[in-house]
Amino acid sequence: MKIETEIRHFSSPLYLESGRILEPYEIAYETYGEMNEDQSNVVLICHALSGSHHAAGFYEGDRKPGWWDGLIGDGKAIDTRKYYVISTNVIGSCFGSTGPMSENYPSEAPYRLKFPVVTIKDMIRAQMHLLSDLGIYHLRAIVGGSMGGMQALQFAIDYPNLADDIIALAATYATRPWTIAFNKVAVEAIRRDPRFENGNYAKDAFKEEGLDGLAIGRIAGHISYLSPDSMEDKFGRNYVSNDGLFELFGRYEVERYMEYNTTNFSKNFDPLSYLYIVKAINTFNLTRGYDTLYDAVLRIKARMHLISFKSDYLFFPKEMEHIYRMMQRNGQECNYTEIESNYGHDAFLVELDKFDGLIKEVLQ
Amino acid sequence: MKIETEIRHFSSPLYLESGRILEPYEIAYETYGEMNEDQSNVVLICHALSGSHHAAGFYEGDRKPGWWDGLIGDGKAIDTRKYYVISTNVIGSCFGSTGPMSENYPSEAPYRLKFPVVTIKDMIRAQMHLLSDLGIYHLRAIVGGSMGGMQALQFAIDYPNLADDIIALAATYATRPWTIAFNKVAVEAIRRDPRFENGNYAKDAFKEEGLDGLAIGRIAGHISYLSPDSMEDKFGRNYVSNDGLFELFGRYEVERYMEYNTTNFSKNFDPLSYLYIVKAINTFNLTRGYDTLYDAVLRIKARMHLISFKSDYLFFPKEMEHIYRMMQRNGQECNYTEIESNYGHDAFLVELDKFDGLIKEVLQ
Repeated sequence: MKIETEIRHFSSPLYLESGRILEPYEIAYETYGEMNEDQSNVVLICHALSGSHHAAGFYEGDRKPGWWDGLIGDGKAIDTRKYYVISTNVIGSCFGSTGPMSENYPSEAPYRLKFPVVTIKDMIRAQMHLLSDLGIYHLRAIVGGSMGGMQALQFAIDYPNLADDIIALAATYATRPWTIAFNKVAVEAIRRDPRFENGNYAKDAFKEEGLDGLAIGRIAGHISYLSPDSMEDKFGRNYVSNDGLFELFGRYEVERYMEYNTTNFSKNFDPLSYLYIVKAINTFNLTRGYDTLYDAVLRIKARMHLISFKSDYLFFPKEMEHIYRMMQRNGQECNYTEIESNYGHDAFLVELDKFDGLIKEVLQ
Repeated sequence: MKIETEIRHFSSPLYLESGRILEPYEIAYETYGEMNEDQSNVVLICHALSGSHHAAGFYEGDRKPGWWDGLIGDGKAIDTRKYYVISTNVIGSCFGSTGPMSENYPSEAPYRLKFPVVTIKDMIRAQMHLLSDLGIYHLRAIVGGSMGGMQALQFAIDYPNLADDIIALAATYATRPWTIAFNKVAVEAIRRDPRFENGNYAKDAFKEEGLDGLAIGRIAGHISYLSPDSMEDKFGRNYVSNDGLFELFGRYEVERYMEYNTTNFSKNFDPLSYLYIVKAINTFNLTRGYDTLYDAVLRIKARMHLISFKSDYLFFPKEMEHIYRMMQRNGQECNYTEIESNYGHDAFLVELDKFDGLIKEVLQ
């Protein structure tokens, strides 16, 4: 599989939903495989909150491949021998696309809290500019889970002629207060962490120790990505063997898992980016910009493939089913699959074997 | 209704599950109504994580009554014209019973992190001492929800001859990793808050501003006390009217709710107490001290009334049902009610009208 990682610079303005303008801006992206002559084999991949454009393959020296490597590659469900796959990093991110720690042109200082709020609609508008810059005007498919699924759905509505097929997993039609509340833990924990310094921290301030506020917010995140049953299967009531049951800070295995994963995360993810991306997730609402959800959904022309996971405690299956029922009544081409899984929301990253056949089928 | 609030001092040692000893110790308690001559009308109330012995009635100047005032009082489900109700504050709490900020005798300095870990078993053992001190050897009933339900269940097993009826709501047979993970947010947020000073904060340090770490942990708590549907009903996607949708820190109503409730809470609740009580909840396991859960449950002689709430996302109905099925198979007297409610775990504090009839019936 041929992998290329690029950053493209745009000096034209990106008009944001807020009325503000991002200019200039950059988009980091990665491609897998090769484009065919009539450009009919392009598949766009959209990433989730903590993801990046690095969806597949290994970087030199890395032990872990991209976040959907099980799905994207030669002979895999998204077969890079057949498809030219583009995976872009959302604006607002800290992995290469313009985000709050990018230089606020013409100054060389980072935007920090002066970075404009971006929305899912803005993220995909930026991707449209990239596609257009690459000379790509039609996509075979758009695929994404969680916030990536939001983008896929938003693409289907805002740009109805862009893609043949839309595959959206573990997402919703509008973020519900339950999810906003989980995100609130992160927002408050980051904001109130004195080392966050109201966004004025040094650029590499958290590389060594991580920001506690982000780690704490991420614990809440991890709860919402798992499910009660997956935690039961994974950890049960097992206690860390060297900790004392009657020590105040002795830990259950589930606690050790939360500590370990979140502390590492807080070293590698920029807290301002986290705040901005969480904001984009909170404000996600397919209805915004249209009169009703029905009007928005009615615009869809692509074949829609909605996938949810039975044990998803962040975006509940009924939320995707809601879109499906609406499209079905309209006679729009749509199918909906609720996958049996114990893994909770994380299933879209973990239980690939439960839906890769489905994706393969769509792409055949 | 006659209300009395007392603190009883014990100079005898309390032997804890950990092998440590608490000595001396005090228990704060409140009584409602009057004991009859043959002492056959005593009902014991057990409180939850954030509760206290103040379960009913108004304190002078307070706008809010005790936490179960809708249930306890003259003519109410737990009728104080008929029953003598005792509500005790658990050890480890910050509302009058001995806890981590109490004096570590013979010094006058608080225990702080030297306070021993206490368990649900320890909490009820302390209550047994209080009852015995009051000359009460038999209870008409024990009633509690959430951590109060854990105490009620533990009473049923550890002291099978104590009460005629046990009413346990919104609890479990052993705290599952899902709940421990929610508590982990609070543990980490408190521990990592610099103002917590590893437990060495000044006694009234948080009266004015509250401890951020506790407030943040409490947000995670509130998520687990509500349910996706109750949040939808209560807040929907409503945005705070004076906040901007495209301001990074603009808030949805659910966010304002979380801020408001948790900031106030963090001014009034001692963070060390929170850590110790959360530890007691995490370590709750009816099996501990017995060979199996089956052996533990087999000890029960009281009539058991188990109540759960359909939308409880903290202690799921199937957890209470598990105890019920076990008892049913053993031919032990037990009934189980799963109440239809949108309110989530909080239903045991809020939707009193959905189960007060049930409690009334048990007590008649």
